[in-house]
Amino acid sequence: MEKGGKNWNFQATQSQDMSNASAITVRAVLNKLMGNLNKDDHRQIIPLGHGDPSAFPCFRTSIAAEDALVDALRSAKYNRYAPTVGLLPSRRAIADHLNIDLPYKLSPDDVYITLGCTQAIEIAITALSRPGANILLPKPGFPYYEAQVAVRCLEARHFNLLPESGWEVDLEAVEALADENTIAMVIINPGNPCGNVYSYEHLKKIAETARRLGILVIADEVYNHLAFGSNPFVPMGTFGSIAPVLTLSSISKRWIVPGWRLGWLVTTDPNGILQKAGIVESIKGSLDLTADPVTFIQGAIPQILENTKVDFFSKIIGLLREGADTCWDKIKEIPCITCPNKPEGSMFVMVKLNVALLEDIDDDMDFCLKLAQEESVIVLPGIVVGLRNWLRITFAIEPSALEDGLERMKAFYFRHAKKQAMNSIQT
Amino acid sequence: MEKGGKNWNFQATQSQDMSNASAITVRAVLNKLMGNLNKDDHRQIIPLGHGDPSAFPCFRTSIAAEDALVDALRSAKYNRYAPTVGLLPSRRAIADHLNIDLPYKLSPDDVYITLGCTQAIEIAITALSRPGANILLPKPGFPYYEAQVAVRCLEARHFNLLPESGWEVDLEAVEALADENTIAMVIINPGNPCGNVYSYEHLKKIAETARRLGILVIADEVYNHLAFGSNPFVPMGTFGSIAPVLTLSSISKRWIVPGWRLGWLVTTDPNGILQKAGIVESIKGSLDLTADPVTFIQGAIPQILENTKVDFFSKIIGLLREGADTCWDKIKEIPCITCPNKPEGSMFVMVKLNVALLEDIDDDMDFCLKLAQEESVIVLPGIVVGLRNWLRITFAIEPSALEDGLERMKAFYFRHAKKQAMNSIQT
Repeated sequence: MEKGGKNWNFQATQSQDMSNASAITVRAVLNKLMGNLNKDDHRQIIPLGHGDPSAFPCFRTSIAAEDALVDALRSAKYNRYAPTVGLLPSRRAIADHLNIDLPYKLSPDDVYITLGCTQAIEIAITALSRPGANILLPKPGFPYYEAQVAVRCLEARHFNLLPESGWEVDLEAVEALADENTIAMVIINPGNPCGNVYSYEHLKKIAETARRLGILVIADEVYNHLAFGSNPFVPMGTFGSIAPVLTLSSISKRWIVPGWRLGWLVTTDPNGILQKAGIVESIKGSLDLTADPVTFIQGAIPQILENTKVDFFSKIIGLLREGADTCWDKIKEIPCITCPNKPEGSMFVMVKLNVALLEDIDDDMDFCLKLAQEESVIVLPGIVVGLRNWLRITFAIEPSALEDGLERMKAFYFRHAKKQAMNSIQT
Repeated sequence: MEKGGKNWNFQATQSQDMSNASAITVRAVLNKLMGNLNKDDHRQIIPLGHGDPSAFPCFRTSIAAEDALVDALRSAKYNRYAPTVGLLPSRRAIADHLNIDLPYKLSPDDVYITLGCTQAIEIAITALSRPGANILLPKPGFPYYEAQVAVRCLEARHFNLLPESGWEVDLEAVEALADENTIAMVIINPGNPCGNVYSYEHLKKIAETARRLGILVIADEVYNHLAFGSNPFVPMGTFGSIAPVLTLSSISKRWIVPGWRLGWLVTTDPNGILQKAGIVESIKGSLDLTADPVTFIQGAIPQILENTKVDFFSKIIGLLREGADTCWDKIKEIPCITCPNKPEGSMFVMVKLNVALLEDIDDDMDFCLKLAQEESVIVLPGIVVGLRNWLRITFAIEPSALEDGLERMKAFYFRHAKKQAMNSIQT
């Protein structure tokens, strides 16, 4: 049996190595781009790649929310483990908070507190997985869904979002894709990566489609209330009586605190269908097998929800609207990218990249790698969210940095533009 | 396709329902016992079932640790997402902290910050899983390992801990169980559930056995430094040059803050074997697919490790030693339970239950359910940690509550004792 320390039984195999699934997450690609920055460029790095403006002073979270955390911590009541489903008063506070916008009342039992929306996604996918089942995901979408589906017993099928119709769901495609093994469809509203906000009518049609197909709707509302265009934010749970809804969200985006890792999974299911189908038990079982959110942050939730003033939210919405306007205007000055719809929500916009206008750029990934290297600007390649030769740009950063970043993209374009294209523009 | 809302495709199946795996976690069983409490008993509930004394004022965490958290939060530097492996200064601080007790130097790259030790277990098991492989787990042990193994591509095989030898690992059994598909063995030191602390010599023998078998050692040291008997705490990483070690730990137990959810997975592998085997990449990939620890708590780690005074640790060790003494003495007064070894570490002791002395108690689970109902005392049935008709008792609670709880257990015994047994004791 002596192996002389040379032979070891453990060896990562292809199937074991998680890097296939994880390579497609947003953060893995952003890390790759950050690795391509030029260290000799001493200008500010402009992060247009992710939805986290918390580092910019103008996006600092509400002091009331910070105070709530400090109070909870100093009380010494929350150093202990929490129940796996979350602290009851916090579940109640979240239910009450969501009830403001719903036509019926959620109970605390409908709310499961999670480690940000990330873990809410993980729990939803885990709880629904079974061999042979499939789930419908939007394209473009958020690749953490694909990554979670890849490591579980589920098949992913993709329906398109339609840029020509304000990134609405292609409901005919949904009907064509679904079969008796389809268990759910995912929508993200307000939209990541597209910056759209669905109308009441479109959401109702989604619910009706889900009901016809016998599937539930997973509504990712992590950007809830971050809407500043013509459509107000309408929670998918509004239509929970048509088809059951799992609503996933967090305080990460609205309060600009993604690092606090506090979110929720909510069953909006007034007819109790998820309960009868055993999905509720499956959610609880999945929660027993993962780490819990920090107890004192849970403990602070009632105060955070109650004490954050409308001024704070108005300021954030104002900044996002201003950013969206800037983006919309500046993008028109960069011939190689076009934007089908002005963003009206979330923190992002999708723009189409025309590589034919560029001399030495192969595709969106190549564009983003060279942009990082030459201009210290980080933008997410569309391939990561499912659309090759598109780009996802965030407008949720400090206004002056956003202008600077878009100016650099313009300079990058003119440096790489094909001569022919240049001529046609200059004339 | 119209289903009239009656038929839905999603339905939890046996394989999907996580309740089989989760039913065996400690917290699921404790929840069951709590559900059996008698609401008309207005005495204090005595929680001898779990390792979380944070609710008792004498076990309040260090104010320096609280201050570190408040400072990190108020700085507004840590509201953002953290890298999946953790913040670099915090990884460095943890490496430096562990290096004090190691014969060689860990680098920050050896440290991955996790959501408590719970997520460190999850990541270790996920990163090592591959079809056909098996892992050796201690019996008695910590059932979260079994639960994680059950939902992944791994087979669990159990080796005994030997009560007659201070709960040392039965190394002959380990050699007999292992084959070429065995990838790792788990040890928990200081011991949960047994309260033992392994000697330097025994740990060295474990490493030598692992090397012979070509396996790595997963060392769960969540109770690190909570040792108050004859053996000092020796980190398994001391023997990392014999066989590679994954050390799992957290601040939960030593700082009495399980609700802060801050732990680490550390590769103690001076020969770089895990790197070569692809395990390091697999760990990083697994981390990309789970939620991260809260950023500002990570940000506070350097201050927490630096500023917590020795007085705090001495006070906690003093309370645990006092609790262990009380337990050891009081257990002798309860004829139906016997304790093979006085606890010298962690927060627990294992005692053997002699149901033959009891009139109407079937087994350990029955004992615990009735004890909860009649005496409002929560004790963990041994079956949960792998030993039927044993009990795991924590001594990590306020001294007066501990005495009260053990007195109630004594009263419970005398109420349920067989008459014959009673007579033999009274004479």
